[in-house]
Amino acid sequence: MIDKHSKIPIYYQLEEAIKTEISENGLQAHDPLPSERIYAEKHGISRMTVRQAINNLVNEGILYRERGRGTFINEQKFEQDISHLTSFSEDMRQRQLTPSTQIISMKRIDHKTNIHDKLELTDEESIYEIVRLRLANQQPIALETIYTPVKLVGNLTENDVEKSFYDYLEQDKGYIITSGQQSIEAALANSEEISQLKLKKNDPILLMQRISYLSDANKTPIEYVKSAYRADRYKFNIEMKRKPAF
Amino acid sequence: MIDKHSKIPIYYQLEEAIKTEISENGLQAHDPLPSERIYAEKHGISRMTVRQAINNLVNEGILYRERGRGTFINEQKFEQDISHLTSFSEDMRQRQLTPSTQIISMKRIDHKTNIHDKLELTDEESIYEIVRLRLANQQPIALETIYTPVKLVGNLTENDVEKSFYDYLEQDKGYIITSGQQSIEAALANSEEISQLKLKKNDPILLMQRISYLSDANKTPIEYVKSAYRADRYKFNIEMKRKPAF
Repeated sequence: MIDKHSKIPIYYQLEEAIKTEISENGLQAHDPLPSERIYAEKHGISRMTVRQAINNLVNEGILYRERGRGTFINEQKFEQDISHLTSFSEDMRQRQLTPSTQIISMKRIDHKTNIHDKLELTDEESIYEIVRLRLANQQPIALETIYTPVKLVGNLTENDVEKSFYDYLEQDKGYIITSGQQSIEAALANSEEISQLKLKKNDPILLMQRISYLSDANKTPIEYVKSAYRADRYKFNIEMKRKPAF
Repeated sequence: MIDKHSKIPIYYQLEEAIKTEISENGLQAHDPLPSERIYAEKHGISRMTVRQAINNLVNEGILYRERGRGTFINEQKFEQDISHLTSFSEDMRQRQLTPSTQIISMKRIDHKTNIHDKLELTDEESIYEIVRLRLANQQPIALETIYTPVKLVGNLTENDVEKSFYDYLEQDKGYIITSGQQSIEAALANSEEISQLKLKKNDPILLMQRISYLSDANKTPIEYVKSAYRADRYKFNIEMKRKPAF
């Protein structure tokens, strides 16, 4: 499979070959990967090249390393369809995983912040800031900070935000959420994210920011959410329609 | 603005304060950021805490460092609306930037690969693999690998893929592209991406994979594209509609 005369770098060809091997041989999560030496001998390439390919697959979250134990197949990433606005809890329930939430902090902010503009609030209006760790089957997946206007949600208790915040807004408060504006970026995890999501230094994260709007004519913003997802465990999917831009 | 008695970490509060300062004081791209000492004195906090906040903003791509020169405001990220299927070229033209393309490699593959399934091809069918560097105003933004079936595009020359591949498919070949399925992940740049996109070790990238489909009843896949975007220069936006999942 590996063509040494190709312009495509050999390590890249090996990455593709390992991915094919994983899917075709039905390797499961946490199965060990054959050693660097075996790949080097099989393809007649240097161990350094093999190491580079494996490093890249570790970076992509397809493999993971355990110090002193070797390299293993990682679990498949959770794939979330972001064409529709679904909450983390709904999303996890759909794939038969048990979502849970740990509240890290919750406070009311009574001064102007840079969140006020996003929520279309005046400087005097208060907001709640709720930091939550989201888990699937006990594994930490995302660290999430919700900002929501006090005037819309009233007195909020920890109990209200321990499960799906959408459930609270829709079922307890009777709000109708119709649309959202979301952005997705990549970043390195900061120290808080490293500690909460059990990551290592220089691990990447998917940074998601979302504003959700109510069904009223003004499209009132009901929440601004900033979430850091473990990049090795999460992947966003989207279906798109073609509409030429010119 | 910084509340030392809050449960919110001080470095995080400082990050938010710096972001507010950048937008409210109208700081421009490449303006220098005040020194760590100034922030430490202004807020009565340790320089280590200031450094942590600045590190996080560098990781997010809001600031950048130049060795021996200090810390500066980064250019704003390109924001791409991914609710619709637009090409890189269309997207750059829309924001009045000049897109350009460097072809890194182009080859025909006549054996089965793990791309064949994605493009719904039989093992015997051939594909082209085209690696392109995409630039905006001469800055490298994305490293892109296109796979497309030979039976659909015929003889492809470098000339055909030097500009928008969508233009080629739609205008030269007369295909109608109607929809796409896209996934977005975060990863660390691999060595090829580091070299082509002028990144540093441990810089994160946004990894985008897309399959585009034709308008025929079978929804024939016309391309599979894997793109690595500089995480400090690119950001995806999406508008979503609410559709409860339960």
